[in-house]
Order: sequence, then structure tokens, then C-alpha cells
Amino acid sequence: MKAFKPDPKLDLVLERVVDVPPPLVWDCWTMPKHLKKWFTPAPWKTVHAEVDLQPGGRFHFVMQSPEGQDFPNTGCFLEVVKHERLVWTNALLPGYRPATSGAATADDLIFTAVISLKKHGKGTKYTALAIHKNPGDMENHAKMGFQDGWGKALDQLVALAKKM
Amino acid sequence: MKAFKPDPKLDLVLERVVDVPPPLVWDCWTMPKHLKKWFTPAPWKTVHAEVDLQPGGRFHFVMQSPEGQDFPNTGCFLEVVKHERLVWTNALLPGYRPATSGAATADDLIFTAVISLKKHGKGTKYTALAIHKNPGDMENHAKMGFQDGWGKALDQLVALAKKM
Repeated sequence: MKAFKPDPKLDLVLERVVDVPPPLVWDCWTMPKHLKKWFTPAPWKTVHAEVDLQPGGRFHFVMQSPEGQDFPNTGCFLEVVKHERLVWTNALLPGYRPATSGAATADDLIFTAVISLKKHGKGTKYTALAIHKNPGDMENHAKMGFQDGWGKALDQLVALAKKM
Repeated sequence: MKAFKPDPKLDLVLERVVDVPPPLVWDCWTMPKHLKKWFTPAPWKTVHAEVDLQPGGRFHFVMQSPEGQDFPNTGCFLEVVKHERLVWTNALLPGYRPATSGAATADDLIFTAVISLKKHGKGTKYTALAIHKNPGDMENHAKMGFQDGWGKALDQLVALAKKM
């Protein structure tokens, strides 16, 4: 899609300018070895990640709580525009198969994520959009700490990118 | 996706060779004025169709029963490869928003459709694949007459294309 217009009753947005360029942010988002290092705010960990970087391709990761409990999550990439835009959803499984509610995610939260990267000086204007099916899901996602969690994860991404 | 491998426990497939070329089949599938003439096996009608032909774009149509009852259906295009492949789902609403079960379709049947066209002599090898989330949905779709209904609709498409 050319333009996403967030609906404030249904969608959550994190927008920040970070001082690493789009190609590095892109690599952090799309390479499993990098994803495992930043994707989950500490003390949570991402202990496994799989990326089949094409529309319809598999996106699978396992988050681990500080107590050691695993939370697997499987979704499907929808748009892959290198260094610019990455769209994925857990409403569909790989190959665009409609997900069975409850099986798609550990916590039953279904959403589509749109990660947009724009060159901003030597850095990146980073926008993460989470698209939900109803206001209840959006509120749950907000209560689960979307802003704080995705923000902390982005800090971890930036710290990682600066070492790359 | 480069290749779709149907799962016989979850997916339905209609495959036929028709004697009209891929560009005409494509036009019938993607232009509302044509869709309204073939998309629903008679005596059902398609009384309205909207097509925003891009990934994430809106696909909306209204089927009408012989008794005059309207059945609206709204989905989202996933892949648009001109004259080759069209993928859409009603598991997502336009803009990739996860669909609320029950609201997406009149009959609550959620699936992803993959229409593949391959040049075959002067005609087209036409494959329609319906991807479901569980065996129950596949069986319901089969009982609703997938083979017969999609086959009759394809006959209508071919008859229309020959007049174009």
C-alpha cells in the first residue's frame, strides 16, 4: 500500500527519529541473528527467530520470559520493500493461511505491523504501526506496554546497529 | 510467494484449461464491470463490485440470492502480479486490518484465494486455490459447492471473455 492512515480508535503508533541509517535498521529487522539481540525488551529474550523475507513468507520467533517460559509467535510477511517498509501479520500463517485464533500467538493478540523507514539526515525516521481488529485489542496491546516495550526494543536495536 | 503447495486436508483446488488467454481472464477478475457479469453462478448475481488493485487494497463485492437477499463480502488483495497471479483474503480487511470473525463475510467462511494463470497454447491453465484455517472450514466450503460453484462461474467468465 502506498499510504497507511492510522485509525486512532484501532491502531497504535510509535514514531521516532534514530541516529542509524535505514539499511542498518532494515538488517536488524530482517536477519535472525540480529533480531535475537534486540527484538524483546530485556530481561525478556528472543531465543529463536526465522525469517523468509518475501510476501507470504514465514516470520517465526520465540520470546522467553525472565522465568524461562517460551512464547512462540508465527506470522506471515505481507510487504517487503527493502530499506523502506516491512509489513507482517499474525492474522495469517505462512503462505497466507488464515490463522486459527489462539494458535497464532501465545497471548491471542492478533495484529498487523507496518514498519516504515525514511532517511532523516544521517539517521532514520522510524514508524511502527500496529493495526488491530477492534478497540479492545488495541487497548490490550496498549496495556501490555506497546509504547514502552517497542520503544525499549528500538533502543536495543539502535545500540546494536551502532556496533555493526 | 513463488510456489503454493496445497494441503489436501485444508485446501480446495479447481484446475482447468480454458480457451481464452490470460490477459482476458485477468481483466474479467480485476475489473468491476466484468466481475458483475460472471462472478456468481446464476441465478445468483453479483450486484456490486469494488477493486483497488494493489497489495493491501480493498476487494468488496455484494452477491445477491435469487430471493433478492444481499450478501456483502469485504477482503484485501495480497499479491497482484498482472496476468499471472491474484491473491486475496477475507481474513484481512483493506489496509491489512485483521478481520473480525463474522463481520468479514456473510457466511463466516474465511479463506485466502490464489488465482494462478499460465499461458497454455492459445488459452490459459487456470488454477483457483482456496486456503482455509482448519479442515472444518474446508469441508464447509466443499459442501457449499466450491467445485461446482467456482466451475460454473469460470464457465460464465469464459463465455464473457469470448465476447470481449
